[in-house]
Order: sequence, then C-alpha cells, then structure tokens
Amino acid sequence: MSKHPQLNRHGELRHLLTIEGLPRDVLQHIMDTAQGFMSFGDREVKKVPLLRGKSVFNLFFENSTRTRTTFEIAAKRLSADIFNLDIQRSSTAKGETLLDTIANLEAMDADLFVVRHSESGAPFLIAQHSPDHVHVVNAGDGRHAHPTQGLLDMMTIRHYKRDFSALRVAIVGDIVHSRVARSDIHALTTLGVPEVRVVGPKTLVPGDLRALGVRVCEDIDEGLRDADVVIMLRLQNERMSGGLLPSASEFHMMYGLTPERLALASPDAIVMHPGPINRGVEIDSSVADGPQSVILPQVRFGIAVRMAVLSIVANTAA
Amino acid sequence: MSKHPQLNRHGELRHLLTIEGLPRDVLQHIMDTAQGFMSFGDREVKKVPLLRGKSVFNLFFENSTRTRTTFEIAAKRLSADIFNLDIQRSSTAKGETLLDTIANLEAMDADLFVVRHSESGAPFLIAQHSPDHVHVVNAGDGRHAHPTQGLLDMMTIRHYKRDFSALRVAIVGDIVHSRVARSDIHALTTLGVPEVRVVGPKTLVPGDLRALGVRVCEDIDEGLRDADVVIMLRLQNERMSGGLLPSASEFHMMYGLTPERLALASPDAIVMHPGPINRGVEIDSSVADGPQSVILPQVRFGIAVRMAVLSIVANTAA
Amino acid sequence: MSKHPQLNRHGELRHLLTIEGLPRDVLQHIMDTAQGFMSFGDREVKKVPLLRGKSVFNLFFENSTRTRTTFEIAAKRLSADIFNLDIQRSSTAKGETLLDTIANLEAMDADLFVVRHSESGAPFLIAQHSPDHVHVVNAGDGRHAHPTQGLLDMMTIRHYKRDFSALRVAIVGDIVHSRVARSDIHALTTLGVPEVRVVGPKTLVPGDLRALGVRVCEDIDEGLRDADVVIMLRLQNERMSGGLLPSASEFHMMYGLTPERLALASPDAIVMHPGPINRGVEIDSSVADGPQSVILPQVRFGIAVRMAVLSIVANTAA
Repeated sequence: MSKHPQLNRHGELRHLLTIEGLPRDVLQHIMDTAQGFMSFGDREVKKVPLLRGKSVFNLFFENSTRTRTTFEIAAKRLSADIFNLDIQRSSTAKGETLLDTIANLEAMDADLFVVRHSESGAPFLIAQHSPDHVHVVNAGDGRHAHPTQGLLDMMTIRHYKRDFSALRVAIVGDIVHSRVARSDIHALTTLGVPEVRVVGPKTLVPGDLRALGVRVCEDIDEGLRDADVVIMLRLQNERMSGGLLPSASEFHMMYGLTPERLALASPDAIVMHPGPINRGVEIDSSVADGPQSVILPQVRFGIAVRMAVLSIVANTAA
Repeated sequence: MSKHPQLNRHGELRHLLTIEGLPRDVLQHIMDTAQGFMSFGDREVKKVPLLRGKSVFNLFFENSTRTRTTFEIAAKRLSADIFNLDIQRSSTAKGETLLDTIANLEAMDADLFVVRHSESGAPFLIAQHSPDHVHVVNAGDGRHAHPTQGLLDMMTIRHYKRDFSALRVAIVGDIVHSRVARSDIHALTTLGVPEVRVVGPKTLVPGDLRALGVRVCEDIDEGLRDADVVIMLRLQNERMSGGLLPSASEFHMMYGLTPERLALASPDAIVMHPGPINRGVEIDSSVADGPQSVILPQVRFGIAVRMAVLSIVANTAA
Repeated sequence: MSKHPQLNRHGELRHLLTIEGLPRDVLQHIMDTAQGFMSFGDREVKKVPLLRGKSVFNLFFENSTRTRTTFEIAAKRLSADIFNLDIQRSSTAKGETLLDTIANLEAMDADLFVVRHSESGAPFLIAQHSPDHVHVVNAGDGRHAHPTQGLLDMMTIRHYKRDFSALRVAIVGDIVHSRVARSDIHALTTLGVPEVRVVGPKTLVPGDLRALGVRVCEDIDEGLRDADVVIMLRLQNERMSGGLLPSASEFHMMYGLTPERLALASPDAIVMHPGPINRGVEIDSSVADGPQSVILPQVRFGIAVRMAVLSIVANTAA
C-alpha cells in the first residue's frame, strides 16, 4: 500500500479510510461538495442520479443502526442500489475469512463497500485487496478512525464559525477509546485550528496525544475556559464495567456538561456530540436542548457529508 | 395538541393516529382514494411516482413482519424510499429516548414515520413533537388503535355490502386487548352502522363499551344471529398464560366460528379476520377457506388503504 | 401437478423448481440468456427495466445470507421491487401455515417467490398452490435441489470447456447431504457429459446414484484421475457432530484437494466450489487461490444466471 492508500496519483480520493494524512484541499473539497447537498432536504424529490446502477454494500461487522441508516439514506438519495448484509448471520459467521467475503462480493460486481469493523485497520485491508474500480469508505474501525464523523464535525464547525484559524476546540470525555476524537483531532489540525484540547480523567486520555500538538487537560474548567467549540463524547456504558470509568453519576459530577460549566466557554461557543446522547451523564438536558447545542444540525450535515464522500470516491479512477 | 391532532385547520388528514374522532367524509375520502389503487395489482408496472424522493421510516418498536411488509409494499409502489429501522438493535436499545431517536431521523430529512409501539399513545407523542412537514401513521399502538386495519376492514365491508346504514356487525373474541376491535368500532359507528355487537367471555369484553353504543353479548349464538358481517379476532397465544383466557380448545368450543354457528348469521354474511389466523382455534378451516370468507380480500384492500393513507398525509400541509 | 410442473404447455419455464427433468434446450436457453447479462457489470448503469414494478419476495425459511443477497442483487438489477421477509420473526413463527403465509403474500400482489426451505419439496408445494401469474424459484430445498447453483455451475463449465460431450467431471465430498451435487448431476447428465463421478467416503455417497449413470469412487485418486472438472463440496461443520463425518483434519487427509491430488486430474482441469470454502478442510488455500480455480467466476456467473431465471419465469404465461 502506498503512502497515501486513499488517494490516486493525482491526489484524488479513491477510498475514505482515515482523515490522518489527508491534505487540507481534499477535506475542503468534500465539505464543498457536501454543501451542495445541504439544500437537498427541501427539494420536492430528494434524489439525484449520481450513483444510479451502482451497488453499494453496507458491511457492518460491528453493529450500528444509526450510522448504517445514514449511509443507506445517502446512497438511496444518490440513486444507488444498497445492500445491507446481515453479517451476524452470514458466511463470515460460517468461518469464511474477511477477504473471501469481500472477494465474493466483488465477483457480484460490488462498486462500494461501507465498512464498520471492531478491529482497527479492517477497511484498509479491504481497500488494499480490492480491484481498481472498487471503493471503500470507513464507517468506523476499532479505536482508530471514524472519518465521516470527523468530516461532519468539520462541516458543522465551518458552518457556525466560518474560519478555523483562530478557534479553541475542546473534546471532552473518553478520549482513549474514541475513534471520533482521533478523527476530529486530525481534521482540526489539518484545517489549521491553533488550539485543540482533550479533556478527561487520566485513565481515559492518552498522554501521547501531546505529540499531535494537542493540549491535555484533566480539569474540565481549564479545558472549557474560552473554548469556541465543545465536543462532548458519548460515555460508552459498556466501558464502565472495566474499571476504567467511574460510575455514570460520578462521571457527570466531574465531567458532565452543565450550564454552569458551559458558561466558562466563549459566550457564542457551540456544543457538539456524535450521538446518541446520554442525558444527565456526559451532557445535561438543558445544554443538549439549549441554544448553543448544534447536535441535530450535525446529523443533517452527516447525510450531506456521506453523500459527498460516496459520490466523490465512486467517481475517482485508480 | 389540538382537539383533532391529525387534521389541519381545513379538516384534512396530516397524520393518521386513530379513527376515533375522524369525520365520516375523511374516512370516505381515504376509502375512495384506496379504491383507485385497487386495480393496481393488474398493471404491468405496479408503481406510481406519488411519493418519489420521499423518505419513509418504518419504526416498529413492537415486532410485526406482516404489517411492516404491507407498509413497505405500499411505500415502494408509491416510489418512496423506505427505511426499515432495526429498533431492537438501535440507539433506542442504547438508552436513547424515543423523542431523541425521532429528532435524529427528522434531522436526516424524514418525511413520514410509520409507527408501531407497544405503548398506547406513542404515535401521538411523535406527531406532537414533529415539524410541519413530517407525517405520522399509526401502525398499531398498545391496546389503543390500529387505524389502517380499521380502514381496510371498512373497505372490505363497503365492497361486499355497499351500504353501512342497515348492517349488523359482530366482533368476536378477545375484545379487551384488541386495538383492531377498538378501531373497527369507531369506524363502524362513524359510518352509520346501526348495530355493532361485541362477543366474548366476560373477562375479555370491557363492559364500558356500552357507552359507545355497542351491544355486548356473552353468548356467541346471540351475537351471531342475523349478523351481516362477522369479524373474528385473533386469539393471542401469549395472552393465555395470564389466566384471562381459557385454553385454545376451550375457547374454540365456546367461541370458535364453526359452520354451524355461522349458519346463525345472515345467509350472505361475510367472515373477516385481521390475520394471521389460528385454524381450529378462533375459526374452523372450513369457514376460513369457505365461500363466505373474505380474509384474503382484506389483505388486498390493506395494501390499497395503506397506499391511500401514505399518499394523502404526505401531501397535506400543516 | 402435471408431469412437468415447472413448464407450461409450450414447454416454457414458469417456475424453476429442480433441474431434474428439464429438457436440454431449456437449460441452454437459461444459459444463453444469462450470457447476455455477463457484460452487465462493466456497464455504467447496471440496471435493466425487465422486472420494473414486479414484486419479488425472498422467502428464506432456512437462513442463507449469501444466496439471498445474490437474488436481491439480481432482482434489483432487473429493476424489481424486492422484499426480504424476516421469516424467523414473521407470522410463520406465530404458527401460521406455509400456505397461509403464501396466500397472504399473493393477496398483496406478489409476482415472484424465491424460496429456500429446509424441507425438500416446499417450493413445489408453493408452486402447486399459486395462481397463474405467480412464479416460484427454488433457492435450495432440503437435500433435494439447488437449481440455480446447478445452472451457474453449468455456465462456468461451458465457459471454460465449451463442449460438454467429452468431459469427465468429479464431484467430491459429502454427496448424500448435498442438493448442489444432485442438481449438478441432473444438469451434467442432461447436457450430455459422458462421465460423472461422485467421490467420498461410503457414509457420504449414496450407492443408488449408480442408477443415474454416475460412477461412484471411494478412492479420491481414482476419482480425480484425468478429470476435466473438479467440483469440491463444502464440508458442513454442523454435520460432523452426527458421526457421519470424520473430523475436519481427517477429512482433509483423505479427501481434501491438495496440489498433489489436483495433479492427477487433466492439466487444464478447472476447480469449482459452491462456497463458502473451508480453507484447509475440503480444499487447500494454494488450490483455491491457484490458476485452476474458477470459484470466483462461479459467483459472477451466479448473478447472471439468477437474472436470467427471474426474467424468464416472470415473463412466461401459465
């Protein structure tokens, strides 16, 4: 695999695997394309024929109804044929290897794979072994990357803040297990955000993030002070049994976004969350539903970004 | 919520939540529209572009493959994009509230929600919190209402009996748990049926139905005598463990529709059932497959009624 | 049911239930039609309107994500509306009979049923009880037949060998439980293959196959010698618990296709497998991925064959 496995020799996007290493102009091109799809919901007929006759496969080895649905919506609005494979009951369950499953789908003339996998790197492996006309979009792999979430977060920030070059962005919560945090950090850095802070208890914030130019804050008040953008991460309940996390109520006491804490941030700060939210755990209802929350606009940008990514990669030659 | 939450100020149908309180002309408009779709199955191409580009979400919080499929068929024949959400594995399962799930789907530019829920009132709650351009169709909520079943039953009766104004209609079985019974009673009353009888053991027939102008019969012979329409309800097996119901064979002995009992009804009486039928429990095979049975025509009317409802509400302004 | 329940009185294919008894010209017509769909994957828009507006139902009473997906792909490329019924959660699970389920779907204006069932004969039963305009395709019933697999195997052999009239074909593995083997044997015999060998341990090869003109070999070397086509069957893991099969490693030692064994066959022999493959059990990776393997081309032919079958039966009058 070349240094930029997702780009062709003209620097165009063939696969979307990770935001790490993507040039700024590629990120901007995706956002600009997505912008063109933003008025889409108002149209009488929410369909364009950009992917007509293409076969898109949703391969969710790890379950996520929400993300799978957003890709299904994006693909259908682009007029693609989309197939949701029930991986839990499929040949993979019968002991078939990942690459054999993929080779079989390619023999069925698949054009695009949207892949979620609990193991980091699975979408790379698929891209590496695919013929030139097949395209791969990473819908979340392990703790590694969730590039379309990163991109929709950037769309949201660009929409509300216009300019990245003077922002203070705080990412709060379970950083160490979060592919969203990782994708956001790479995107923010590439787009020129001067100050990215990661905020959380020591057990959940990897110290080596400092190498990426990120400021690590254990104290939430310090992390939020004068921030322009606050990205709250979802507290994964399934993580709490492992002893890495305090209880939900302890977490709320120490890191939950309350109106009082939000008041430390810039008065026009926006509050983001990748969803689904745990009301009263990482975020108070009054904040989630308040005037600074842009959580639902994020969802709307998410459809546009996924339409942009699918249509860009599908039309990029090897 | 206004007195008529499903109607706009012109009295047009924006949502279909319950038959209770719907004016007779609205019921007739739905049936007339459905009638136009009845020849649809004979066409070479069974599609019309009435909902092209609309996004319809099947939200079945309570499982029902049959009803979900009928809405999926109706939506696809109207050329909509339809999304079946796997609620059991979705964000709701991760603790997201119903209204947060809905708000997220609305941010994805949903146009129509088809909702089944085990709790009465859930579709109302969704309709109440939806923006003007979103429409809700109740596909069965708790013991409350199943309005499309009620409407398809009325289509069936109108087809075979032409006129509602002189009919005797008997509804037989587990009335107390049946949203079908409730929707049928409201529809029959609104359409002017002079005599509606509910028939079943005391434990399964709520006495307060008399307030709706319904005649309550514990004795099946009395209930069936001279009836023009016999609607048998499905015996829910899962109910029998609760002690409310006798065993299946006891039920059959006391309330099962046998040829002998059917002979008490009017000679041209029709026999209806919402399906799936329990042969030999609430209905004998010779009756279900006999000349008076209109159980399969009900299914056919069901597709037409759902096409009518989806196309009407989707095109009704707030 | 007539002698040829799948053919109309003009000898045309109304249903595809089994290859047994199908005339050679019908097999050839399906393969010729499929050939026309083989360049399909290279097109910009992989869709033809041959089944536009038709309602195809995937009825998989036995689970098979792979085969279900191939029919879904074939149907969508023919522009049909396809409905995947979740049989495990459906009315069948509520005790409804198979024929009641079918009658209900027919009342919804179903055009085509694609049926997989663990009981041999289920697709026949459905075809027998369906009205004239409904068509049934068997996607595998019990140990009985898997006709589209048989047809795609014939497409593959015809593509690589051109002529059937001088071939030696070896089918290796668990013959007794294999509907694939049975469909292949009928197809090969009908198409004039002079020598069909079935190879496997005595417990897994029914002796009465000799009545079909098939040569039975217990010794794999004898079975492979000078073969032009080697069809390896999948070792069903779930069968091994029954004591009929040796362990996976014993099976590999005695019947696994190694490069050494393949060297006994004709130098230009092709290696086939219905998938999913068990690497290192019935077939070595070096053979499965080697130059003589046509396992992935089989998958490609499978889509074309299913498009051909669906489009032929859907357009054949009773």
